[in-house]
Amino acid sequence: GFAKIDHHRQLRRGFPEVVLCEGKTTEQVVKIMQNLADTGQNVLATRAEPEVYEAVKEVIPEIEYNELGRTLILEQTEIEEEEGSILVVNAGTSDIPVSEEAYETARIMGNKVEKLYDAGVAGIHRLLENHDQLRKAKVIIVAAGMEGALASVVGGLVDKPVIAVPTSVGYGASFGGLAALLTMLNSCAAGVGVVNIDNGFGAAYLANSINKLK
Amino acid sequence: GFAKIDHHRQLRRGFPEVVLCEGKTTEQVVKIMQNLADTGQNVLATRAEPEVYEAVKEVIPEIEYNELGRTLILEQTEIEEEEGSILVVNAGTSDIPVSEEAYETARIMGNKVEKLYDAGVAGIHRLLENHDQLRKAKVIIVAAGMEGALASVVGGLVDKPVIAVPTSVGYGASFGGLAALLTMLNSCAAGVGVVNIDNGFGAAYLANSINKLK
Amino acid sequence: GFAKIDHHRQLRRGFPEVVLCEGKTTEQVVKIMQNLADTGQNVLATRAEPEVYEAVKEVIPEIEYNELGRTLILEQTEIEEEEGSILVVNAGTSDIPVSEEAYETARIMGNKVEKLYDAGVAGIHRLLENHDQLRKAKVIIVAAGMEGALASVVGGLVDKPVIAVPTSVGYGASFGGLAALLTMLNSCAAGVGVVNIDNGFGAAYLANSINKLK
Amino acid sequence: GFAKIDHHRQLRRGFPEVVLCEGKTTEQVVKIMQNLADTGQNVLATRAEPEVYEAVKEVIPEIEYNELGRTLILEQTEIEEEEGSILVVNAGTSDIPVSEEAYETARIMGNKVEKLYDAGVAGIHRLLENHDQLRKAKVIIVAAGMEGALASVVGGLVDKPVIAVPTSVGYGASFGGLAALLTMLNSCAAGVGVVNIDNGFGAAYLANSINKLK
Amino acid sequence: GFAKIDHHRQLRRGFPEVVLCEGKTTEQVVKIMQNLADTGQNVLATRAEPEVYEAVKEVIPEIEYNELGRTLILEQTEIEEEEGSILVVNAGTSDIPVSEEAYETARIMGNKVEKLYDAGVAGIHRLLENHDQLRKAKVIIVAAGMEGALASVVGGLVDKPVIAVPTSVGYGASFGGLAALLTMLNSCAAGVGVVNIDNGFGAAYLANSINKLK
Amino acid sequence: GFAKIDHHRQLRRGFPEVVLCEGKTTEQVVKIMQNLADTGQNVLATRAEPEVYEAVKEVIPEIEYNELGRTLILEQTEIEEEEGSILVVNAGTSDIPVSEEAYETARIMGNKVEKLYDAGVAGIHRLLENHDQLRKAKVIIVAAGMEGALASVVGGLVDKPVIAVPTSVGYGASFGGLAALLTMLNSCAAGVGVVNIDNGFGAAYLANSINKLK
Amino acid sequence: GFAKIDHHRQLRRGFPEVVLCEGKTTEQVVKIMQNLADTGQNVLATRAEPEVYEAVKEVIPEIEYNELGRTLILEQTEIEEEEGSILVVNAGTSDIPVSEEAYETARIMGNKVEKLYDAGVAGIHRLLENHDQLRKAKVIIVAAGMEGALASVVGGLVDKPVIAVPTSVGYGASFGGLAALLTMLNSCAAGVGVVNIDNGFGAAYLANSINKLK
Amino acid sequence: GFAKIDHHRQLRRGFPEVVLCEGKTTEQVVKIMQNLADTGQNVLATRAEPEVYEAVKEVIPEIEYNELGRTLILEQTEIEEEEGSILVVNAGTSDIPVSEEAYETARIMGNKVEKLYDAGVAGIHRLLENHDQLRKAKVIIVAAGMEGALASVVGGLVDKPVIAVPTSVGYGASFGGLAALLTMLNSCAAGVGVVNIDNGFGAAYLANSINKLK
Ligand SMILES: Nc1ncnc2c1ncn2[C@@H]1O[C@H](COP(=O)(O)O)[C@@H](O)[C@H]1O
Ligand SMILES: Nc1ncnc2c1ncn2[C@@H]1O[C@H](COP(=O)(O)O)[C@@H](O)[C@H]1O
Ligand SMILES: Nc1ncnc2c1ncn2[C@@H]1O[C@H](COP(=O)(O)O)[C@@H](O)[C@H]1O
Ligand SMILES: Nc1ncnc2c1ncn2[C@@H]1O[C@H](COP(=O)(O)O)[C@@H](O)[C@H]1O
Ligand SMILES: [Mg+2]
Ligand SMILES: [Mg+2]
Ligand SMILES: [Mg+2]
Ligand SMILES: [Mg+2]
Ligand SMILES: [Mg+2]
Ligand SMILES: [Mg+2]
Ligand SMILES: [Mg+2]
Ligand SMILES: [Mg+2]
Repeated sequence: GFAKIDHHRQLRRGFPEVVLCEGKTTEQVVKIMQNLADTGQNVLATRAEPEVYEAVKEVIPEIEYNELGRTLILEQTEIEEEEGSILVVNAGTSDIPVSEEAYETARIMGNKVEKLYDAGVAGIHRLLENHDQLRKAKVIIVAAGMEGALASVVGGLVDKPVIAVPTSVGYGASFGGLAALLTMLNSCAAGVGVVNIDNGFGAAYLANSINKLK
Repeated sequence: GFAKIDHHRQLRRGFPEVVLCEGKTTEQVVKIMQNLADTGQNVLATRAEPEVYEAVKEVIPEIEYNELGRTLILEQTEIEEEEGSILVVNAGTSDIPVSEEAYETARIMGNKVEKLYDAGVAGIHRLLENHDQLRKAKVIIVAAGMEGALASVVGGLVDKPVIAVPTSVGYGASFGGLAALLTMLNSCAAGVGVVNIDNGFGAAYLANSINKLK
Repeated sequence: GFAKIDHHRQLRRGFPEVVLCEGKTTEQVVKIMQNLADTGQNVLATRAEPEVYEAVKEVIPEIEYNELGRTLILEQTEIEEEEGSILVVNAGTSDIPVSEEAYETARIMGNKVEKLYDAGVAGIHRLLENHDQLRKAKVIIVAAGMEGALASVVGGLVDKPVIAVPTSVGYGASFGGLAALLTMLNSCAAGVGVVNIDNGFGAAYLANSINKLK
Repeated sequence: GFAKIDHHRQLRRGFPEVVLCEGKTTEQVVKIMQNLADTGQNVLATRAEPEVYEAVKEVIPEIEYNELGRTLILEQTEIEEEEGSILVVNAGTSDIPVSEEAYETARIMGNKVEKLYDAGVAGIHRLLENHDQLRKAKVIIVAAGMEGALASVVGGLVDKPVIAVPTSVGYGASFGGLAALLTMLNSCAAGVGVVNIDNGFGAAYLANSINKLK
Repeated sequence: GFAKIDHHRQLRRGFPEVVLCEGKTTEQVVKIMQNLADTGQNVLATRAEPEVYEAVKEVIPEIEYNELGRTLILEQTEIEEEEGSILVVNAGTSDIPVSEEAYETARIMGNKVEKLYDAGVAGIHRLLENHDQLRKAKVIIVAAGMEGALASVVGGLVDKPVIAVPTSVGYGASFGGLAALLTMLNSCAAGVGVVNIDNGFGAAYLANSINKLK
Repeated sequence: GFAKIDHHRQLRRGFPEVVLCEGKTTEQVVKIMQNLADTGQNVLATRAEPEVYEAVKEVIPEIEYNELGRTLILEQTEIEEEEGSILVVNAGTSDIPVSEEAYETARIMGNKVEKLYDAGVAGIHRLLENHDQLRKAKVIIVAAGMEGALASVVGGLVDKPVIAVPTSVGYGASFGGLAALLTMLNSCAAGVGVVNIDNGFGAAYLANSINKLK
Repeated sequence: GFAKIDHHRQLRRGFPEVVLCEGKTTEQVVKIMQNLADTGQNVLATRAEPEVYEAVKEVIPEIEYNELGRTLILEQTEIEEEEGSILVVNAGTSDIPVSEEAYETARIMGNKVEKLYDAGVAGIHRLLENHDQLRKAKVIIVAAGMEGALASVVGGLVDKPVIAVPTSVGYGASFGGLAALLTMLNSCAAGVGVVNIDNGFGAAYLANSINKLK
Repeated sequence: GFAKIDHHRQLRRGFPEVVLCEGKTTEQVVKIMQNLADTGQNVLATRAEPEVYEAVKEVIPEIEYNELGRTLILEQTEIEEEEGSILVVNAGTSDIPVSEEAYETARIMGNKVEKLYDAGVAGIHRLLENHDQLRKAKVIIVAAGMEGALASVVGGLVDKPVIAVPTSVGYGASFGGLAALLTMLNSCAAGVGVVNIDNGFGAAYLANSINKLK
């Protein structure tokens, strides 16, 4: 057919190919999802609009939809949960969609995931009061838009790997997430790894590969 | 001659025209400085390289040079100091040139000026420990390069006007100060006013106009 | 719940947290507005589309909507008006939405606010004729799109703090407000503080913090 | 040889090919200048560094050098001066090099040229006081860097064609003249034609073609 | 009311204020059009969507609409036609909207206007075959999108003032007209004046001021 | 009429003018298609939305529509197929629209065309396994979005001309295809020629001119 | 003095503050190095030009300089080597400076570090032949300039965390490393964390924090 | 040692690895050149400064240097010349360095190479007069800076593959070649393949692979 699904990926990278719905027709998504479901593995799709969910549910009734995070998940294999945990921190309510994408991705890949939402630096006591939660996590994902300063502040407080996801939250000179992206790349707190704007999936993927290391 | 010096400025804006040396020949700077000195008012020039200082000293021996801040100052009228004070905060050692430009500008315009240097968010306790100094100031100038997150953090802690100066400190994706500039413009802490990259002079000018309000 | 409302903000910064509706679901806005309303303080929300207004009115019938400025205001505590006044100047009719956002924000925070609209430099006599209004204000907000030259011209005429808001008015090489933003950052008239494109709220917030200084 | 000099240009466009020295070796410039000089026409070269001048003088002793404007001119044919005049306005001392390039180009092409230098909008009375000079010109060239607001202000005052030259004067977010360029392209005063950053030559070339129209 | 119409403009600049509909509410446009119509002068509005036309026609039934060019014209004063003519050249069918905006603007301002459409450099014989039309015009407007090379080619063929309008025609790396804009600013044929992307109005305004020179 | 169709193009460039539907009204497209069809030559239009297809079918019933590739083709002259073949490789399912535009363009111009779809570098074995297909082609077109690395990898494996088409597939810092475009221009594997973002048509046009060389 | 050295950092983040020499005067570097050396801990400085090395050696004779990597290291405490290893892969000879900065940083922080240099995708067999080395590492750093495709290819082959460092190697449309940066952010192989252009130090810092996780 | 020279490249891609001197130390270049020379194949290095030439000549006395094109060539194997020819066209004298890089690369790879220099569109007759030379070539390389319009014009005249090289010639809004690059990518004449700014080498490499096709 039109797609060469990478069935070798589970072996090579530890999780089957994940479907990015954006940019595909609903028809294409449905076919790829079925193909992946037939392998018996767990299936994850991201950036699924409600219409796509409806169409997939027609053929895979057990599919689960996280409306805010826009993920589709088919859980047909038991998930063995890793011991260390991943913490998803965000700056404000508008960062929830990206944060939830990260949350669902990390969860289906077999990680314990915690959340610390709406802790942006405009009211920094909200972060400092939860220092314990930061300390207990093994890997920290920080999702923030506007100026994205939260990543630097978190990065300066811990010695854990911090993965920063700039979000497209903001307007004007945020240029669709560019401001937050540049902030995170230039973080004066060293050791922050950055992924693409709004890429909650990629952040969780990297966090998972770190959390699974022996 | 070649320049129409704005001798009306002291009246209209409260301080005589200030000389930006960058982009002028040494000869032009010397002539303009002499012309301004002849009015008997205090004179300020910014972005003066050592050669320019040497040339100006030839004709105005009392001229004072701040080597790091690259300012030239001729103080021939007594400065009446304002009661409220301006605090210049910066993120790190490399932000000193811009910070000193702000310091000298604010000082010659008749303000009490305090400094809180090297207080970047990579070690945020350095800022929090000096919360008192933040509280006592009437206007705060924040100079920071790299990701410039310091402005948001300061902005979130106080109810004073905060003036942010992005500096060109950094490399790579800091794009000569652009990253810090965007950070400051998108500050999630509201009420931060931003000036041009490396424009310590402009920050102090605005701070002065605020501090002088009755 | 999903949001950690910063109830400490009134104390720390002099006004409760303001809700940015853009990027939140209507449901989220309603919940946050109720939560804030319950504190008994005045409440301000910005960037509210008519649908959001309708939904909020359901639960907070006293809410007031400025259609052009897209603000929601709940005035349940008497506003003590500051003595000095803030003047909102704009360049043309298309800058009204941003100007009204500034106007409402400044007003609810307890400031006397004046307006001087449609005074762009294409017909500079419209500004010069109103020089008196400029002189009487304590802080001036200038909102302008296209090339945003108005900020420099106003900045050159007064010794008051000038806060410039670039607007996204224009097309082509205005790049969504970028042209006006750069103009304002490079103002040859010193002492102009700039906020984000279309950020009428932020401009007023800064103007308020200046106007309240003792 | 290496260059196909466009000897047909005098006929087609009214003035012989002009030499842009930047980007050519001194040797190449010398050869091209000699070739053009041999035609007996007047010769103009722009962006000539002092070394280039020295080398050309060796072979064409009558060559004249404008040090600030970096032009080389060989005047071997009498210039018939046009009746209407071209006015070169600039914002500040640092715009002189570009302004002089425009001045020399317009002059050698046979135009009466006037100057109004250092009339930037930070002190707008310097422009308004010289309104007469604006009115008397047939074409106006405005050279300005930083935010370049001068072009809009001049454009709003007259009904003559205004040609705007952004200059690379400024720093930080002026991005080498980009800020002034965008300002001029977005001028709210209609009817401003813009040329490349620092292109004093091009501005004068266009002004000349307008001034020569019958 | 909300707008300070610049009734002085006819005197100062030779034509009354022109209404840019984009960015205004239909209600605002209608009020401004009525106000201008009441002066008895001719009225021009640009960027008028069909709905705006319908609303204006309700109150000014004689209004004329150019659907492709999106202009509204009320001709209530006889137009005295200038002798010289303005030629509008474009590169392809998709540049027609901008070209028609220029055409209507020039016409209502009292100019003879000619058209040479679809003459892009992909088939350069279409331009060369019409060399005569280029020669007869007094001012030439060139509208082109994609790479905008047409402006340089026309500029190299004539000694008349050439005004280049980049259009937003194209996709991908044309970046909404930026590619054509840069092309035109960097034209190797000297003497091309550039206006904003899609600014047919501005090009005609400048052409008019040139054509009217005595 | 409004368009000067370049009927000379078949002779000069080997294929008649191709219609770019984007940016034209449906009415304009229909008229141009009819005009071209009347010549008896084969006709190709690109970027045709379904509505345009419906309108054209009304007057040219034999027209064929490739829904994914958005091309309209009228085949009224027999196509003589070239011996060498063109291979269209892409990175993933979302690159299909651009790939199909290339496919149809190359086919109607008289080339044997092969496809190797969904062979992106995230699973590089999918490419290496098909090395034979790469070797057998005479010209290779690579369409890829996101980071576009596929072009460099293919370029490093073969000694055939490789034409790279960046696609606008991706989000965030892909900036509408800019990331893939820059990747392809900077390819460390030499000899890759790049066309505009999403320009499947242009890639095939160039591939055709290469494949036809004798 | 002028710097508030963050002596708390060893405790909070596991390694003392590291000195970025770029942007500091030699005098400032020397003072900070001495201050850090006095604590008895190991000291690292990056971006040290030869002159800086000479000056530091005067006061700290045991200092070691890596000329290509521009690092200064004072090893006065025994390094306990971590068990897992970090692999530094690069694309070509010109990426060596950044790679060596990463190498030295990782080493002094107590990691086993391996190298795989000059393995760019222009000759992909150089990477595939060393698949074993990729498999044995616990964390992989990929440094590449030009189009930076190497990061995606490595990312697609392994299930280890991959940290990508774009380098400023290249010219033209590489825009000082921007092309490689965008490539890496848009990697179609998920789970790649990106740091700033040329930030070998930051990559190693993150790799270290991952390698040290228990 | 430090470099894994790709000795397999001659086999895979038809010519040995070419050395890009820029970004390598002189010492590294010398070692790599010796290593390549030892294979007995012809050797090409690009971007060699005079110092590099001197150092290489010490160890490979037969090395030949093209000063303008900055290439080093060691010809130790007889070149079999291809029948078809490659034509290098450029717009002006300043494009010679890039053109010569292309010339030398094509020549050493075994192609007949012709030149048509200084034929930019400011005087388009220089191109049209040489139409024959365009027609006789099998592949055409066009090198042009400033606005780069020459590529579109040539592309519109022929049915041969055209490879466009934007050069960094120009100033101001040419942004180091970006303007010409965008022009070429958006060429309205279809079938133009573009390489990186100043990449004469890459253009010739692609031209060679086309010219060698059977
Ligand atoms: N129009 C506005 N522009 C920028 N910031 C705003 C605006 N309105 C509210 N805010 C701020 O945005 C922040 C909202 O963050 P959150 O609601 O948690 O996403 C608050 O700190 C507000 O002060
Ligand atoms: N199409 C257009 N493009 C650019 N400016 C325009 C256009 N149409 C009218 N204008 C100008 O836009 C300004 C409108 O300002 P205002 O109506 O106050 O927002 C007037 O000065 C007009 O001359
Ligand atoms: N998909 C496409 N992308 C770029 N150019 C195209 C495409 N399809 C057709 N063209 C070219 O676009 C030009 C259309 O010009 P016009 O139709 O006059 O606006 C023709 O020269 C076509 O060769
Ligand atoms: N002028 C040039 N521009 C772009 N790439 C080049 C140039 N000269 C050589 N190359 C390529 O650059 C690569 C050099 O990589 P390396 O020498 O390992 O840094 C080789 O693959 C060459 O084919
Ligand atoms: Mg919040
Ligand atoms: Mg420090
Ligand atoms: Mg108006
Ligand atoms: Mg001045
Ligand atoms: Mg056409
Ligand atoms: Mg796929
Ligand atoms: Mg190599
Ligand atoms: Mg020439």
